[in-house]
Amino acid sequence: MKTLRVGIVGFGNLGQAAENSLKQQPDMCLAGVFSRRKLSHPSYMPIAVLDEGRVEVDVLLLCGGSAKDLPKQTPHFAGQHNVVDSFDTHAAMQQHFEAAHAAATRGGKVAILAAGWDPGVFSVMRCLFEATLPQGNSASFWGPGISQGHSDALRQLPGVKDARQYTLPDEAALNAARSGKPVAKAHKRLCYVVPEEGANLQQLEHSIQTLPHYFAGYETQVVFVSQEELLQKHAGMPHAGHVVRHGSTQDAHAHLLEFSLKLENNPAFTASVLVACARAACRLHQQGATGAYSLLDIPLGLLSPQTPQELRQRIV
Amino acid sequence: MKTLRVGIVGFGNLGQAAENSLKQQPDMCLAGVFSRRKLSHPSYMPIAVLDEGRVEVDVLLLCGGSAKDLPKQTPHFAGQHNVVDSFDTHAAMQQHFEAAHAAATRGGKVAILAAGWDPGVFSVMRCLFEATLPQGNSASFWGPGISQGHSDALRQLPGVKDARQYTLPDEAALNAARSGKPVAKAHKRLCYVVPEEGANLQQLEHSIQTLPHYFAGYETQVVFVSQEELLQKHAGMPHAGHVVRHGSTQDAHAHLLEFSLKLENNPAFTASVLVACARAACRLHQQGATGAYSLLDIPLGLLSPQTPQELRQRIV
Repeated sequence: MKTLRVGIVGFGNLGQAAENSLKQQPDMCLAGVFSRRKLSHPSYMPIAVLDEGRVEVDVLLLCGGSAKDLPKQTPHFAGQHNVVDSFDTHAAMQQHFEAAHAAATRGGKVAILAAGWDPGVFSVMRCLFEATLPQGNSASFWGPGISQGHSDALRQLPGVKDARQYTLPDEAALNAARSGKPVAKAHKRLCYVVPEEGANLQQLEHSIQTLPHYFAGYETQVVFVSQEELLQKHAGMPHAGHVVRHGSTQDAHAHLLEFSLKLENNPAFTASVLVACARAACRLHQQGATGAYSLLDIPLGLLSPQTPQELRQRIV
Repeated sequence: MKTLRVGIVGFGNLGQAAENSLKQQPDMCLAGVFSRRKLSHPSYMPIAVLDEGRVEVDVLLLCGGSAKDLPKQTPHFAGQHNVVDSFDTHAAMQQHFEAAHAAATRGGKVAILAAGWDPGVFSVMRCLFEATLPQGNSASFWGPGISQGHSDALRQLPGVKDARQYTLPDEAALNAARSGKPVAKAHKRLCYVVPEEGANLQQLEHSIQTLPHYFAGYETQVVFVSQEELLQKHAGMPHAGHVVRHGSTQDAHAHLLEFSLKLENNPAFTASVLVACARAACRLHQQGATGAYSLLDIPLGLLSPQTPQELRQRIV
């Protein structure tokens, strides 16, 4: 088994978690950590080194954000290297795939995109569930887990010193989905808020609960805490979720499929999925494939360090 | 979208369920029901017709048993047609794949094997979970559901007129697996038994609970019922199960992945998986692929009637 040289581009939470994940792989090593800003990391190299072809890498993990980094980085690097990203802006997915596909095809490389848990593992579940139970209803639930976007929105509000927001699945909605009933309000929002000194708490609670696009229309609970309590109890990055499909076969028998995950650390697991996809990207490339793929477009056995024969004997 | 002509070989519970499943597919029609024994079904044809090439089929669903039918039928038909089977004898898996692979490669056809829920959907889960959480422990649980083999074993015993056996997951073991603790006794056995008239019930219970290979060493509960009650309450074919993986990323964070299913009718869902795989077999063949594949060896998007683009826009 050849050792794959894996480069990490971007070294925030996800990039750091990817470095950790590489240590768990029997067939991979870190080829470099590439960043625009100078890092004190021993494997740091300026990102420009990649364009200059001065470093040998088999695959790049693109660990930047979907808003600003990946729309540029993925098509750029897909023309030069096999790449994996966790692009998750649903509305721009098709455009992102097309740009990466064109670049990867031109460069003779493989790009695996939208790898993570959602999109990624959840996408696999939604597809497999729907294909094997074509008549039925699917629902995805997220949480309990920290939503970065909603936490940021809270912190923008006047009177808020610091805050974290948990998205929670509504238990009644989850049970409705499991019974094949329609799901209305699937999620609740729980806000831990450190108020500025002297803030009017009642007014602050009201302005949170009515904040358009974020909390208006949701069952939103606001809990005021001290800065110490927030740092002590809510500094982690846990997440969780469910994909549920209830369906019927033609004989009127009902069936239920459910996937759930519970993560102590969201970027740690996302990175672990990215790293498994890096292996798949290298193998596909070795088989002569080129272009952009999602997790639905590749055999999942390619994620494992084992061969198809080994997998058949052990876990098929 | 071309309509795929799908043949069903063998018309027991699975074959009949496959016919039902075809009615739910937008892109498939029944090309024929092939059986060694004469059926009154309007689409019945003698199985020999397939060898004579007198019928147009795009793919065959091989719905016979793993013990006697499939070891011969799969390699035989894989040389002539795209085929899908639900072969589930783990110990003979590799040999079965090799025989089918040789035939399918020779004939330029595609064979998708071990398709169903276990092996099949469970295999996908075991592989995906292990690849994305390489450090951890996996466990599979089956039930509550009817085990045909154990029900047959009960019916062989002197003093037993009729019987059905449910395999049940041990709740304590399931919770241990979810906490990453070792799983000892994962299953219990629940037997509904109709005794022969005049049978010594205490002695019968003892001989069931100590039956080697089936019940000895398991927590086995025996419930004596009337023939009427057995037919009324235990004539169905429900099944269920879980695949659980608890693992840790290198940063010592723990994560839990779990898949579960609950089926009102076991052959109905198995057939639904087979039929989705029939679509994948035809597409792979159209792409120029040949040989034998498990669900780990094919992109799962091929199971869906939709295109990769449609799937990306809707469920990635």
